[in-house]
Amino acid sequence: MGLTEIRTAIKVDLKRPADQQSLLHNRWHPDVPFAAKVKDGEIVKIECVDWTGGQIGNNDSADDMKNIDLTKIHYLSGPFEVENAEPGDVLLVEIQDVQPFQEQPWGFTGVFDKNNGGGFLDEIYPEAAKAIWDFEGIFCSSRHLPHIRFPGLIHPGIMGCAPSPEILAEWNRREAELISTTKLERIVAQPPQPKNVHAGSASDEIKEKVGKEGARTIPGRPEHGGNCDIKNLSRGSKTFLPVHVPGAKFSVGDLHFSQGDGEISFCGAIEMAGVITLKLSVMKNGMKDLDMKSPLFLPGPVEPHYGPSRYLTFEGFSVDEKGVQHYLDATVAYRQATLRCIEYLRRYGYSDYQVYLMLSCAPIQGHVGGLVDIPNACMTLGLPMDIFDFDISPIGGTPKKLDMGSCAVVSK
Amino acid sequence: MGLTEIRTAIKVDLKRPADQQSLLHNRWHPDVPFAAKVKDGEIVKIECVDWTGGQIGNNDSADDMKNIDLTKIHYLSGPFEVENAEPGDVLLVEIQDVQPFQEQPWGFTGVFDKNNGGGFLDEIYPEAAKAIWDFEGIFCSSRHLPHIRFPGLIHPGIMGCAPSPEILAEWNRREAELISTTKLERIVAQPPQPKNVHAGSASDEIKEKVGKEGARTIPGRPEHGGNCDIKNLSRGSKTFLPVHVPGAKFSVGDLHFSQGDGEISFCGAIEMAGVITLKLSVMKNGMKDLDMKSPLFLPGPVEPHYGPSRYLTFEGFSVDEKGVQHYLDATVAYRQATLRCIEYLRRYGYSDYQVYLMLSCAPIQGHVGGLVDIPNACMTLGLPMDIFDFDISPIGGTPKKLDMGSCAVVSK
Amino acid sequence: MGLTEIRTAIKVDLKRPADQQSLLHNRWHPDVPFAAKVKDGEIVKIECVDWTGGQIGNNDSADDMKNIDLTKIHYLSGPFEVENAEPGDVLLVEIQDVQPFQEQPWGFTGVFDKNNGGGFLDEIYPEAAKAIWDFEGIFCSSRHLPHIRFPGLIHPGIMGCAPSPEILAEWNRREAELISTTKLERIVAQPPQPKNVHAGSASDEIKEKVGKEGARTIPGRPEHGGNCDIKNLSRGSKTFLPVHVPGAKFSVGDLHFSQGDGEISFCGAIEMAGVITLKLSVMKNGMKDLDMKSPLFLPGPVEPHYGPSRYLTFEGFSVDEKGVQHYLDATVAYRQATLRCIEYLRRYGYSDYQVYLMLSCAPIQGHVGGLVDIPNACMTLGLPMDIFDFDISPIGGTPKKLDMGSCAVVSK
Amino acid sequence: MGLTEIRTAIKVDLKRPADQQSLLHNRWHPDVPFAAKVKDGEIVKIECVDWTGGQIGNNDSADDMKNIDLTKIHYLSGPFEVENAEPGDVLLVEIQDVQPFQEQPWGFTGVFDKNNGGGFLDEIYPEAAKAIWDFEGIFCSSRHLPHIRFPGLIHPGIMGCAPSPEILAEWNRREAELISTTKLERIVAQPPQPKNVHAGSASDEIKEKVGKEGARTIPGRPEHGGNCDIKNLSRGSKTFLPVHVPGAKFSVGDLHFSQGDGEISFCGAIEMAGVITLKLSVMKNGMKDLDMKSPLFLPGPVEPHYGPSRYLTFEGFSVDEKGVQHYLDATVAYRQATLRCIEYLRRYGYSDYQVYLMLSCAPIQGHVGGLVDIPNACMTLGLPMDIFDFDISPIGGTPKKLDMGSCAVVSK
Repeated sequence: MGLTEIRTAIKVDLKRPADQQSLLHNRWHPDVPFAAKVKDGEIVKIECVDWTGGQIGNNDSADDMKNIDLTKIHYLSGPFEVENAEPGDVLLVEIQDVQPFQEQPWGFTGVFDKNNGGGFLDEIYPEAAKAIWDFEGIFCSSRHLPHIRFPGLIHPGIMGCAPSPEILAEWNRREAELISTTKLERIVAQPPQPKNVHAGSASDEIKEKVGKEGARTIPGRPEHGGNCDIKNLSRGSKTFLPVHVPGAKFSVGDLHFSQGDGEISFCGAIEMAGVITLKLSVMKNGMKDLDMKSPLFLPGPVEPHYGPSRYLTFEGFSVDEKGVQHYLDATVAYRQATLRCIEYLRRYGYSDYQVYLMLSCAPIQGHVGGLVDIPNACMTLGLPMDIFDFDISPIGGTPKKLDMGSCAVVSK
Repeated sequence: MGLTEIRTAIKVDLKRPADQQSLLHNRWHPDVPFAAKVKDGEIVKIECVDWTGGQIGNNDSADDMKNIDLTKIHYLSGPFEVENAEPGDVLLVEIQDVQPFQEQPWGFTGVFDKNNGGGFLDEIYPEAAKAIWDFEGIFCSSRHLPHIRFPGLIHPGIMGCAPSPEILAEWNRREAELISTTKLERIVAQPPQPKNVHAGSASDEIKEKVGKEGARTIPGRPEHGGNCDIKNLSRGSKTFLPVHVPGAKFSVGDLHFSQGDGEISFCGAIEMAGVITLKLSVMKNGMKDLDMKSPLFLPGPVEPHYGPSRYLTFEGFSVDEKGVQHYLDATVAYRQATLRCIEYLRRYGYSDYQVYLMLSCAPIQGHVGGLVDIPNACMTLGLPMDIFDFDISPIGGTPKKLDMGSCAVVSK
Repeated sequence: MGLTEIRTAIKVDLKRPADQQSLLHNRWHPDVPFAAKVKDGEIVKIECVDWTGGQIGNNDSADDMKNIDLTKIHYLSGPFEVENAEPGDVLLVEIQDVQPFQEQPWGFTGVFDKNNGGGFLDEIYPEAAKAIWDFEGIFCSSRHLPHIRFPGLIHPGIMGCAPSPEILAEWNRREAELISTTKLERIVAQPPQPKNVHAGSASDEIKEKVGKEGARTIPGRPEHGGNCDIKNLSRGSKTFLPVHVPGAKFSVGDLHFSQGDGEISFCGAIEMAGVITLKLSVMKNGMKDLDMKSPLFLPGPVEPHYGPSRYLTFEGFSVDEKGVQHYLDATVAYRQATLRCIEYLRRYGYSDYQVYLMLSCAPIQGHVGGLVDIPNACMTLGLPMDIFDFDISPIGGTPKKLDMGSCAVVSK
Repeated sequence: MGLTEIRTAIKVDLKRPADQQSLLHNRWHPDVPFAAKVKDGEIVKIECVDWTGGQIGNNDSADDMKNIDLTKIHYLSGPFEVENAEPGDVLLVEIQDVQPFQEQPWGFTGVFDKNNGGGFLDEIYPEAAKAIWDFEGIFCSSRHLPHIRFPGLIHPGIMGCAPSPEILAEWNRREAELISTTKLERIVAQPPQPKNVHAGSASDEIKEKVGKEGARTIPGRPEHGGNCDIKNLSRGSKTFLPVHVPGAKFSVGDLHFSQGDGEISFCGAIEMAGVITLKLSVMKNGMKDLDMKSPLFLPGPVEPHYGPSRYLTFEGFSVDEKGVQHYLDATVAYRQATLRCIEYLRRYGYSDYQVYLMLSCAPIQGHVGGLVDIPNACMTLGLPMDIFDFDISPIGGTPKKLDMGSCAVVSK
């Protein structure tokens, strides 16, 4: 009578390679076979590996970060067959809980090498770096980032339903177009990649198809959400996801103990393995009823909150670090705001890479200021002062520098 | 003994044209003469006209919005000579209060015509439109936007100190470069504009110089802040501004009763005339001490707050409405988020222009989601459900449409 | 077209004695004549004197506090005739704004002499004391309480509709009973007091009746609210008041710039004169529909907020300072919590009377902990650390004492 | 390298009777032997049984609640020997996490029979009743209280260090005095009770002594905290506890998934078994340094928050339900506020006992209003409207009643 134990719908084995586990996959494709089934309205637990499938170790070297194999990521748990779900429906995902595994109470934040992954500031900070975080209940701290401690707003970086063949084709079309027309001298998108494809329990034939056509999990995409990296999709949130294939084929993964707005270092959240507890419900014909083209959501009521006056806030404008004026470019503006924060925190003894790592994973608020005052976009970055165990307020005179140690760096 | 009345350092006359009032100006230039003087640490009241200098009327036609003369804006109060302030210092601006004039308890939000000002969504919504807001204490409502009511987070859109000649030259250089190199078929920046220049009490000679060289007040700029349109610079906030000229030459204006993140319709906040109460203090050598290149600030402790779970949140990605994939473009992504919200609110009977106006001025939260998952930037737009007097939650089935009247439109 | 100016329904004259102004009154009685009229749904401004009618001066002596004439208080503005309101209805009061008069930007907090008014801690602190507060926009600070500064949660201490004759009789019955049966050696209630009665524009005959029967305004009472001193009845709040007489006879007064939970020193809020902007609407038959015996309310969305972890919180139990065990007495428990806070803040140099004054008016949170664990009630007092300009956290070793000056005291 | 797993310092066995487990105890006494040891600054997990030691079942009858044996409660985990802790020190307890056992995801809220335990409203609601709650991640819901669902603010009801012999003697003296002098016709305190005493691993001799002298765990007490039932002592909180015996002898228990301010039904929180993760640190000579007579604490930054305007708030005054006027009695006033809420929620179909149960455990805010306006204390009770899945706002006309089923009641 009443609830006894919540069913674990997918289990993972942290000691076995992720690509040998048939309930995981690492590409978006309608033909990835169902890994498990849930009833409409059921609450289940789902275990997840970390997004890299265990490539990063709890140690003091960033060599693993430098040499990461990005063709493997992200390993997702699923896809789930959701009873009653059909194309045109909306899948309501209520996150009841997310937690690290009890026996693995740590996670990592990384900066990739500019030539293998890169990140938001890779033009300025091209080296790989890493910080390991210890989880002490709902709090975390890092030996690589002294004097910082905060509670996690734990969330999955990725949730989404599989694309239909038509949507998948559109993804591949438009991303290929970007690749072929870009004038940037960098990788601008990741086309399908047969190498290291993992299609769950698929036959070799299906697996080959998934490898050729399947969308990479790296970007989020408007039609289904996916890797949107929204830190507020945490405990208590309700997300409304479009359904494109029968049974929904819902997948989840890329658990983050914490993330800052923008996840700027790319491997920027505190990446972890763990368990997510979800309630999945179907809203029939929801896409039409809600006129829905992209997911929408309601955050949960239990986010950490510090009071608005406790956010030291930096402004960024769309003039880049070389003095070039960009036109209403919010991305450039937000990059400038992050640089302003790095410059500011030097006064306490942190290295630039330490702050880059911290900004990626601490609960910073990245807000739009003005986006219409030509030619300058203005973005703000709010840094919660209460995550530091010393006073970082600009009021009160020159501080003395503290011993800040070092983040993990690559071996030379 | 004790405080009696706070001095009003600048008074304006709402019945006289703004360009005939010598304590106002509408260009950034180091040679605009001081309009008033304040002591280091003094609290003063400063009266401000609305940013257009009274071009918009409290009526039901958007013709004034369509025909606005943008060479006149923004009319700022100042510049102030701040005792002790010298280049390299930081001016700490503490906003003690901001209020509309008691005898003019109304303001306006506008959409400009695409060919005269434009805005964030002008490709889709090219017509001019307008909403008039009534101020009822700290709340506002509009006959042009039924069923919506919220408290203002009243703030100045513009605060800043005058540029030095060198900084002004740099502004003109880089913005001219953008104008000369852009491939966009639209106005991308506003170069100096002698027409309708207002240089306060300047001599004709100085005025001519200001007209030729003076920076337009439209964009915010990293070196001094200016028109950053950050809604959180409200009562209780502390802003740290770089000082570039002796006496600081601090100016303020563009008061907003409320604004949404992005101020997307350009004339997007609830624009008003009113009084701001400020405390101005000098932090000697602050720029070097804080390693400051752009302003930073601490918001105040009294922002309206609704609880995180009361924000209906829309996701936008950097794929535009024509299906074109952009590379990590947060501006495109935020535009998509605003479109998702417009599409959603149609189900209750609002017109697209009504929602466009509402999103510009209601306290919506525009957040960075992910900015590194190539090629898609993800941005979110959080709409506080509690500003509506009916339930806009996606849960609960198809709603019946309400009579939403109309916003003010242009005459045909 | 649209809102021009909000009507001021009652004006006061700060230079004339309160008892000579016919739109004020200082007793609750159904026969006090209407002072003004409002329409159902109208928004009006109402001017109010301070609760003492100007007995306290902006100076550094507490002699006026010691010698205050309590037969005169509180001077309320009203009563209002509300169109359509009849017994059994509910009057919905929406507070749109509350502000001090521009020309009187100061207020006072007082401790009464134990023998003339007393207060929550008068057994321990029997002397009169006073602090004068300067209003700087939405913030206040006091020369008598250095290093403290906070924004006001401005509110009226008193709102209510006149009692019916039956309700008034019941009040007089039960309070007389308490007076006649109490074993406490102190004044436990204030019966009707003809001395200094002010019944607005009443005839002499009515005035005499009001003096003989009229309820003192000092306590709040369940049937109508009145002097409930709830700090959250501030801007944006909606209060639902029972209506007992035709036209409602709504009165308001006792404006507070700020108050702590409990208003412990009795003259404990920051008392001020000012203007309140209200919307008054009638809910027909609301008392029955809501099964309402006492007012209920919804606070507004713009309270100052500091983040829960910024409240240093003291515990109090129902064992008094003499070691006597009381049975589940929340009043004793809260008194103990206030004493714990006074003891704690001594370490920074504040005098006990200074803290007593501060606790009365700063936005402290007084919460119920446990009220059932016999014999001890547990109450908590949360002190927002951010109102101090130095760090009061218990972590970090012994602080050095600061020069805290003195509050205003009585002359010897 | 780095954190691997957090040590579990005390394990319990939910299948074995609590009084047979040597790491538990149910009286406060300095002679209860140490159950475990922790280092200064160590983080440990501690398992706890529910406060009754398993007397209440997951079923639909309240008979177990009616017949509960209160001589057994509360079973606490400990006491702990904390390295370095000596009398006069302060023990800093940082709660890192609290969770139910994964295999027992449910808890209970009960109303005791008036003659066996009673509660805050037992004069009016004398029967026993019960609600079982299912834990779905951080949320809970109850088949006995339909249409209600909320996240838990999970916390221990009890934390404290053992009393010294002198303090214990004082407790016994003053509580005996209350018992001998009270004129109330009810049990006002619980003297030492040899029956069912559990003194951990104590010898028979010590156990007998503990039975004769040991303080009941029911009330919190000012000298050490204990059963203070403060809902905010949750994850992220820091509590400062006085140390009275060598090694501190710290104990913890009475875990609550959620509790309302006051825990009004006595068995009022959602009682559960589970695991608490704590960091224990010693502040040498902290009692003198902080002038500490009672515990103080800082809440954590992750409390559920709903926005102030989402709290429907009831007022209570110190006039009891029989019309008797009490003198500034906050307990009476809070009881009235709870009755107002019960009366209000009847309109939706809830029974009085259902609301009584709900008020005991949902995150309601019990605040002090005014405590000085003789003779009426005013207390408020804020009910978060967002825990209901329908609209309980007083605005919007008479609602239709819902099918609310029933709470568990006693068999007749």
